[in-house]
Amino acid sequence: MFSVNQRAVQIVKEKIIPNAEMLQCEVHQLKNGATVIDMGLFARGGYMAGKLFVEATIGDMGHVDFGRFTLGAIDLPSIDVYIDLPQTATLSSQFSGWDLSAGYEKGTLMPIGSGPARAIYKNDLGSIDWTYKDIHHETVFAAQTTDMPNEAMAEDVAKKCGLKPENVYILAATTGSLAGSIQVCSRSVEASMFCMLQKGFPLEAVISGMGICPIAPPTKDELSAMDRVNTALMYGCTVRYLVDCEDDEIEAFLKVAPFNISPRFGEHFIDLFEEGDRNFVEVDASIHTVACYEITNFKTGKTFRAGELREDMLARSFF
Amino acid sequence: MFSVNQRAVQIVKEKIIPNAEMLQCEVHQLKNGATVIDMGLFARGGYMAGKLFVEATIGDMGHVDFGRFTLGAIDLPSIDVYIDLPQTATLSSQFSGWDLSAGYEKGTLMPIGSGPARAIYKNDLGSIDWTYKDIHHETVFAAQTTDMPNEAMAEDVAKKCGLKPENVYILAATTGSLAGSIQVCSRSVEASMFCMLQKGFPLEAVISGMGICPIAPPTKDELSAMDRVNTALMYGCTVRYLVDCEDDEIEAFLKVAPFNISPRFGEHFIDLFEEGDRNFVEVDASIHTVACYEITNFKTGKTFRAGELREDMLARSFF
Amino acid sequence: MFSVNQRAVQIVKEKIIPNAEMLQCEVHQLKNGATVIDMGLFARGGYMAGKLFVEATIGDMGHVDFGRFTLGAIDLPSIDVYIDLPQTATLSSQFSGWDLSAGYEKGTLMPIGSGPARAIYKNDLGSIDWTYKDIHHETVFAAQTTDMPNEAMAEDVAKKCGLKPENVYILAATTGSLAGSIQVCSRSVEASMFCMLQKGFPLEAVISGMGICPIAPPTKDELSAMDRVNTALMYGCTVRYLVDCEDDEIEAFLKVAPFNISPRFGEHFIDLFEEGDRNFVEVDASIHTVACYEITNFKTGKTFRAGELREDMLARSFF
Repeated sequence: MFSVNQRAVQIVKEKIIPNAEMLQCEVHQLKNGATVIDMGLFARGGYMAGKLFVEATIGDMGHVDFGRFTLGAIDLPSIDVYIDLPQTATLSSQFSGWDLSAGYEKGTLMPIGSGPARAIYKNDLGSIDWTYKDIHHETVFAAQTTDMPNEAMAEDVAKKCGLKPENVYILAATTGSLAGSIQVCSRSVEASMFCMLQKGFPLEAVISGMGICPIAPPTKDELSAMDRVNTALMYGCTVRYLVDCEDDEIEAFLKVAPFNISPRFGEHFIDLFEEGDRNFVEVDASIHTVACYEITNFKTGKTFRAGELREDMLARSFF
Repeated sequence: MFSVNQRAVQIVKEKIIPNAEMLQCEVHQLKNGATVIDMGLFARGGYMAGKLFVEATIGDMGHVDFGRFTLGAIDLPSIDVYIDLPQTATLSSQFSGWDLSAGYEKGTLMPIGSGPARAIYKNDLGSIDWTYKDIHHETVFAAQTTDMPNEAMAEDVAKKCGLKPENVYILAATTGSLAGSIQVCSRSVEASMFCMLQKGFPLEAVISGMGICPIAPPTKDELSAMDRVNTALMYGCTVRYLVDCEDDEIEAFLKVAPFNISPRFGEHFIDLFEEGDRNFVEVDASIHTVACYEITNFKTGKTFRAGELREDMLARSFF
Repeated sequence: MFSVNQRAVQIVKEKIIPNAEMLQCEVHQLKNGATVIDMGLFARGGYMAGKLFVEATIGDMGHVDFGRFTLGAIDLPSIDVYIDLPQTATLSSQFSGWDLSAGYEKGTLMPIGSGPARAIYKNDLGSIDWTYKDIHHETVFAAQTTDMPNEAMAEDVAKKCGLKPENVYILAATTGSLAGSIQVCSRSVEASMFCMLQKGFPLEAVISGMGICPIAPPTKDELSAMDRVNTALMYGCTVRYLVDCEDDEIEAFLKVAPFNISPRFGEHFIDLFEEGDRNFVEVDASIHTVACYEITNFKTGKTFRAGELREDMLARSFF
């Protein structure tokens, strides 16, 4: 069995740390020996930092590339992912299921945890719903945060994974940094796999997935950044899947999957976010999806589509 | 002289075999020591399996990437190749010129052989028409097939290449698997180089070629898959070449090259295929090309174009 | 501190020289021990040679990829670059600031020097304007030229860098070769960073840049090639930046940056070039820019745009 943590650690040690200065990243050694890599928090980061952040959080299980998103007058770089065995790459690894809200007051922008460490801990939403479990002596954890990850966070990750803090590598970036925007907007397959999980689509039927999402323009304002990256996913992201199941399972899923089936479709993410006290657990659950789905059934050769891109919503959030 | 087999074996040993599980591939050791890698036959395979299949079959002689194909209402991922010295990469290596029809009855879907082994054997159409000959102690062979390659196939490849079976690596995928669809649809430069050969265009004039072809939606139905991948090439594929010759040589070639010069243009591949008893040797020869050509003459700086993409034909075959 | 020369030398030694034949490049050992790699002068070169030429000249500091440029009826491959810390990658390294005009008569097409060697010499326009200085015992220099680089050129580079000639690697290609066209058309971020320098935009504010530019169709006619590649940049190239400064600094820059603010906008490059006796120092200074700019301010989250693509100018130059 391959290890998403082994693969992610390799990216961190061979591609990120030795090139940190060039990547405009900063490597910090914590007192307990853990390593924190600032990829867009106090450090500037950039395109490469974002791409490597994504590759590490999916356990190096896919092809990650920059592309182009055009919709009406909008023309932006996109972050595209091609992932085979996306259950493991996303539900077990990339998914933002690690709770970091402890100690944060209601209404505060809270950090969000994700990455391969989840596949070892295997105790949060997503990771417990898929068969993969990783065993490795080192781990990579990712924090979407405005606070520099500290000893306590590293200690917590280490403890939950049964590892020593010195074997914990934490990647950190704000939501609004370039790397942060790239890593959240790369969650096309991740968000739609989670939607499949939530809606009861047979996960084991999924062969491969790919997603295209515009990279939301970065901004220092974290609340605005949260709006932009989530708007990118809800109103600008298209995913394509190859699955092997019955056609009616696909049809049933597509009736409840894309964001445009929600009564909240057409509303601004920021409004839904505030309504839920800036806490994803409280926010209307229908946002946990992407804009457009295209699913080809290997069994029948048929292709099904659902969803809608919204230029107006993207433009209003981004510009 | 570089070896396409050495390069392909390196891909197999360093990128495919160690990552087989993650790539959803299966590695089989045959009784005679040959290695078969199922990249989309009984195994699921995926995007990465497809990309690596292509890279191995062109002897790692090009840049292979996913792109985007849009034509009217059609919006699909494409498989794009950029190949220098395409005579060697395609005519000597990737071209589907290795006959595997022995033992198959008329009207049966027969397996198709290709890949770097052809550059050692150098005894089939395409490989005998270009100067390159490879010498290497290991070889990679590719089978587009619904039957798992067996000892007899490996033995045959080994014998024809003058090698031991244990030094033979066979990549296998059906036409309709994701990897299979990717590898056939990647044959943009390959199919057009073969057309140049057939039409007497001076092969040595070709400097570089690139091709864009939509990835036909996968399907378990192999006959439908054959229709889809060939329709992708005949009605959806564009190639671009840089050559160094006389303008009139290009003009003469373009008058006979693209599929739209054929009286059969507008017909479905499946009909032509059935007419030829599902045997490419019998099928109307005008299908051995791609939809659109663009050729720039380095000597004069002029660019020539011919051919036509057909949204309707693609839509009818794919969806 | 990382070394752009160390990184570039690694590309030369590990990716170019061992694959020279496959890349259609030729490696020449000069009498003084310097190495010249013909990537498109007497050698044919190709797509890969072009990509590697770019990667070496930016000190391997970015993501370089082929993309697609469409504008009206024009549909061409593009060369796209994503560069973090572009001040170092371009002003200190890629920028064509190394004077090679000595000995050439007025009105002659003169060679143009660029690449990582500039970051060691640090004595030409661009390199002296940015803080980065490289120290390394080997260097890579790039020549856009119709004359094979000789011992005198290698000696000059070696002397200026304080190195032995045997530690000098020179990449050479004409402007009109495929590699040459790719490497000049990749100068999207480079040309716009130089424009920022010229117009007094605060260089340290730049976080990351990316650029898309059509690859001008190659041609043996070097004067026509000069017209094509520069037309590609002036009328076909779009750059995007993330910066951190005041909005009014961006607005002030965009009022003077894109080529369409010049009174010479709409004129053919070739006419401006002839007017300046085919010498970039003499040519109207307003050409030192690109067609379109899009700048996002990290500080405010606002995005600003200026400039104009011109299909007619591209079509007239290219076809």
